[in-house]
Amino acid sequence: MNWEPCWLPAADVPETLRSPAQAARWELEQQNVESALSVQPQLGDAYEITDGPEGCRIMGGETGVLYGAHRLLFNRRVGLPLPVGMRAPAYPFRMLDHWDNLDGSVERGYAGKSLFFDNGDFSKDWPRLRAYARLLSSVGINVVCLNNINVQPCAQELITERFLPKVAELAEAFSVFGVRLMVSVDFSMPLSYGVPTADPLDDRVQAWWRERAALIYRYVPSLFGFLVKADSENRPGPYAYGRSHAQGANLLARALKPFGGRVVWRCFVYNCLQDWRDTHTDRPMAAYENFADLDGQFEDNVLLQMKHGPFDFQVREPISPLLLVMPHTAKAMEVQLTQEYTGQQIDLYAMQGMWDEISADLPRGTLSGVAAVANTGLSRCWTGHPFAQLNLFAFGLMAWQPMSSFKTVTRLWAQLTYSLQGVPLQTLTDSLLLSREIYEKYTAPLGLGWMVNPGHHYGPSPMGYEYSAWGTYHRADREAVGVDRTERGTGYLLQYPPALQARYRDPATCPEKLLLFFHRLPYGYRMRDGRTLIQRIYDNHMEGVWETRQMADKIQTLSAVLPEEVYQTVWERMEKQITNACEWRDVICNFFYRLSGVRDEKDRL
Amino acid sequence: MNWEPCWLPAADVPETLRSPAQAARWELEQQNVESALSVQPQLGDAYEITDGPEGCRIMGGETGVLYGAHRLLFNRRVGLPLPVGMRAPAYPFRMLDHWDNLDGSVERGYAGKSLFFDNGDFSKDWPRLRAYARLLSSVGINVVCLNNINVQPCAQELITERFLPKVAELAEAFSVFGVRLMVSVDFSMPLSYGVPTADPLDDRVQAWWRERAALIYRYVPSLFGFLVKADSENRPGPYAYGRSHAQGANLLARALKPFGGRVVWRCFVYNCLQDWRDTHTDRPMAAYENFADLDGQFEDNVLLQMKHGPFDFQVREPISPLLLVMPHTAKAMEVQLTQEYTGQQIDLYAMQGMWDEISADLPRGTLSGVAAVANTGLSRCWTGHPFAQLNLFAFGLMAWQPMSSFKTVTRLWAQLTYSLQGVPLQTLTDSLLLSREIYEKYTAPLGLGWMVNPGHHYGPSPMGYEYSAWGTYHRADREAVGVDRTERGTGYLLQYPPALQARYRDPATCPEKLLLFFHRLPYGYRMRDGRTLIQRIYDNHMEGVWETRQMADKIQTLSAVLPEEVYQTVWERMEKQITNACEWRDVICNFFYRLSGVRDEKDRL
Repeated sequence: MNWEPCWLPAADVPETLRSPAQAARWELEQQNVESALSVQPQLGDAYEITDGPEGCRIMGGETGVLYGAHRLLFNRRVGLPLPVGMRAPAYPFRMLDHWDNLDGSVERGYAGKSLFFDNGDFSKDWPRLRAYARLLSSVGINVVCLNNINVQPCAQELITERFLPKVAELAEAFSVFGVRLMVSVDFSMPLSYGVPTADPLDDRVQAWWRERAALIYRYVPSLFGFLVKADSENRPGPYAYGRSHAQGANLLARALKPFGGRVVWRCFVYNCLQDWRDTHTDRPMAAYENFADLDGQFEDNVLLQMKHGPFDFQVREPISPLLLVMPHTAKAMEVQLTQEYTGQQIDLYAMQGMWDEISADLPRGTLSGVAAVANTGLSRCWTGHPFAQLNLFAFGLMAWQPMSSFKTVTRLWAQLTYSLQGVPLQTLTDSLLLSREIYEKYTAPLGLGWMVNPGHHYGPSPMGYEYSAWGTYHRADREAVGVDRTERGTGYLLQYPPALQARYRDPATCPEKLLLFFHRLPYGYRMRDGRTLIQRIYDNHMEGVWETRQMADKIQTLSAVLPEEVYQTVWERMEKQITNACEWRDVICNFFYRLSGVRDEKDRL
Repeated sequence: MNWEPCWLPAADVPETLRSPAQAARWELEQQNVESALSVQPQLGDAYEITDGPEGCRIMGGETGVLYGAHRLLFNRRVGLPLPVGMRAPAYPFRMLDHWDNLDGSVERGYAGKSLFFDNGDFSKDWPRLRAYARLLSSVGINVVCLNNINVQPCAQELITERFLPKVAELAEAFSVFGVRLMVSVDFSMPLSYGVPTADPLDDRVQAWWRERAALIYRYVPSLFGFLVKADSENRPGPYAYGRSHAQGANLLARALKPFGGRVVWRCFVYNCLQDWRDTHTDRPMAAYENFADLDGQFEDNVLLQMKHGPFDFQVREPISPLLLVMPHTAKAMEVQLTQEYTGQQIDLYAMQGMWDEISADLPRGTLSGVAAVANTGLSRCWTGHPFAQLNLFAFGLMAWQPMSSFKTVTRLWAQLTYSLQGVPLQTLTDSLLLSREIYEKYTAPLGLGWMVNPGHHYGPSPMGYEYSAWGTYHRADREAVGVDRTERGTGYLLQYPPALQARYRDPATCPEKLLLFFHRLPYGYRMRDGRTLIQRIYDNHMEGVWETRQMADKIQTLSAVLPEEVYQTVWERMEKQITNACEWRDVICNFFYRLSGVRDEKDRL
């Protein structure tokens, strides 16, 4: 294989493997580890590692033994003690959503072309596909959605007889590693197949989906289910027929239920044709407004997939209030590994810190699953930027155990991937740990998002989304900036439980990183350290660039210890990141200087 | 034929026509007009119409008689007297540049797909192609460039044996109407054909182009020549080899000279990778800086094609200073019929007024030709918006006689096309005459350009090009807006002759429509009518919308007199124009209000 390193030792996966238990045995053999495996199907994903006079033993479900084997091997490779004890994942559903199109392109993909599709058909690169399934299983991911949630017309055919045999073939290959497949479907698909409506309450529509489900499961009995983006950004959905999202989701859920299938239904529903003049509509309120009242109305095989924040994967958002309600509904939190707004796998941005903050606000037991938009593709390191692998690795581990130490996870990944130790290990770990804060400093100031170039979303454009229809406004003028989302403003704050309302209500106590998300403030507003708001914006951006350069200097010290190809890929991107950081700093500072007329105290503008 | 009306009576052009004189006879026969034709080859494009006892007579060159026939028929159809007298075109070269790609798409095209190309090959729609050649000849256009100046790799093959037979076939069809073909070529083409350099001073390169020219003219002896965009917006050019544009153009000119071919060389050369922080570089100065000193260095079969303004077809620009220098060089002025920045054939924008203003500043005899970027395509009325036909019609007439009355030309077109008379004729003529000023009022304020959405260039984005690399900055801040281009600023003004310097130097006397092109002024600056600059911006935009609505009301009165399909096409676009005008007004006013903090005196914001 001609790939850059990842956290697993390179190995061709034998075609002969048939089950996760066989895969577990093979993984252990590969590394010459002797361990007894005991499969107890009722344990499912869970496993227990024990050590005794006869050696170590992994007992677990069919998938559990595979997860246990990986865990054991990870520890062994980095010299940690045998991880004895019982472990079960925090979330039963650990999903990775690919936004891959049948032509091989990937929406918001920064890691090369699609792993699954090529030129209108399924990929035939079985060694790579098996290696990918292995990679995902090693961090416990157990569901993969193959195709883009924005279902292109040709992708409807994934659930027709044209492509179902190929879905089945792929499902079998992935089942060896305990990974089940899911497909994104188009809510209006019956319309393309002779039904005159897609109304979820129409008998003909219900019959059509029942028959479709029967057909699908005849070919692919292991299919996890459907992922659906409905009534969102011009996708079809139940609103077109005056039906609720519960009625829409239940239509599909009832069709899939006889086969054990599930519907993963996205809550990313908002008005994407907003008039920017309208200051009453506030997009972050939309998911809650569309879904909160539907609690208890969904079939039990529906999983609502909610973005972690109320907007759309911006650099800094508070937790989505929707995650904190709907106690009678199965919920999954959606995060975005692919770095659409967070550096596009050019700039470094390690995400775990973000998830940790969200998880800290989530009571235990709130979620049934987590889903991540994939950051993988045909790139030689899987993820475009070699270090972006960490986000996939950390996502898998987070889905087992939220709020594991960010530092520990990062060190583990760096050790496994590059066999680093000592100072270089410390250097790489520190750089990654700081990368998110650095990126945030030179881009979005204090919780403002959307100051990006429209369309591709890389680089600054402070007014790029200000007069658009997407509901994305900072309302900056010569006096002030931000949107008041308290009860004096749009009232978004009231969607939170009291404790969070209290945290965010008062600008004087609101976390400063979210200050301009919740409040509209004049440029002269005094921050808690005595600096003005405008000075803080200037300072943050200057610091962001300075810290990027410092990070680059540190990364440079790794040139001798990283594989040459990895280092070159990393360094090439690091140089682009420095350019990007300078551009952000200069544009954002210039923009606010033009508006405010306030000079930088240190005269750097 | 299933097309909407145009200024010529519908007729299938017989395949049997072989020459312009035959075409002239056929045109006259079509309309049952008896006129003697006398071909005097030495008269070329000129003709004389006489009236005598034996009836009228058209004497002219081979093409002259055709132009004379059309002129006679125009007058006859609208009831004007016989246009007796001698006429010759003001410019020998009257060129139309198509930005058509071989796949059938048209860069900046708003009138459907390409007339010439379809799916990687030449169109086979001969009735349509002949009709197009006829249309062009009726207004005296005599050169057509087939393909996009941004030459895509596959379009290099137009001058290879693969496509030359097809170019020849098309050239023959167009020659019947006195229209010669031109092709856009890629300056670096030798590199694709085994020559290791494209350096114009390299023997191998010179030999390659000589051989290429011989090959081309073996197939297409009538070819007018090459159109070249070099060292411009990432196109290859002589600068890559440290050579001047004279050396670059002469390379091709010498190759074509033995065959009578010409090189039309664009002067649209500027730094498209400008740093927005750099306030010394001023893009409007670029064409002059790159070309003015080369006067006299070009071969006599080179024609320098200069945009009418110093920027790039913005709504309002002063005349390009380059047009006023280089007395020893053949020059052509380039205008843009396709409405890239002027409403995209949705909004009404009749252009002749703009050309008249430029022509008024151009001493007679300055130019050898005019070129227009085509606004035509496979649309049913040729031009997307039926009324956009007027711009093609008026361009042809302007090339014969600059500064003909805008009103007369517009009336003539409206009469010929829709047989209007009386109040409806007046209504349509008035609407078209005012359309440019109306569009200008609701879009770019007082000579500022570039406040458009990047990429597609329709609709407002006041900061869309402000932090870009394209050299397009208005530098608006909370105090002032515009760029000082006098000697106190960038010095652009000094590229003009003294009379024009005097006209533009002082804000107090500078034409107000160009005020912010030449000057940077505070929002409180007093205009000559006593209003402040900011109030004028507000007022203009309000008026622009109000006048658009008035124009729409007038157009509505034409519903009964225009053909139904025409009216529907027009009205559909009129509604979009109103929406667009409102969006421009609100965004531009909001933008300047946020910056300036100055309230509208009439409290409309």
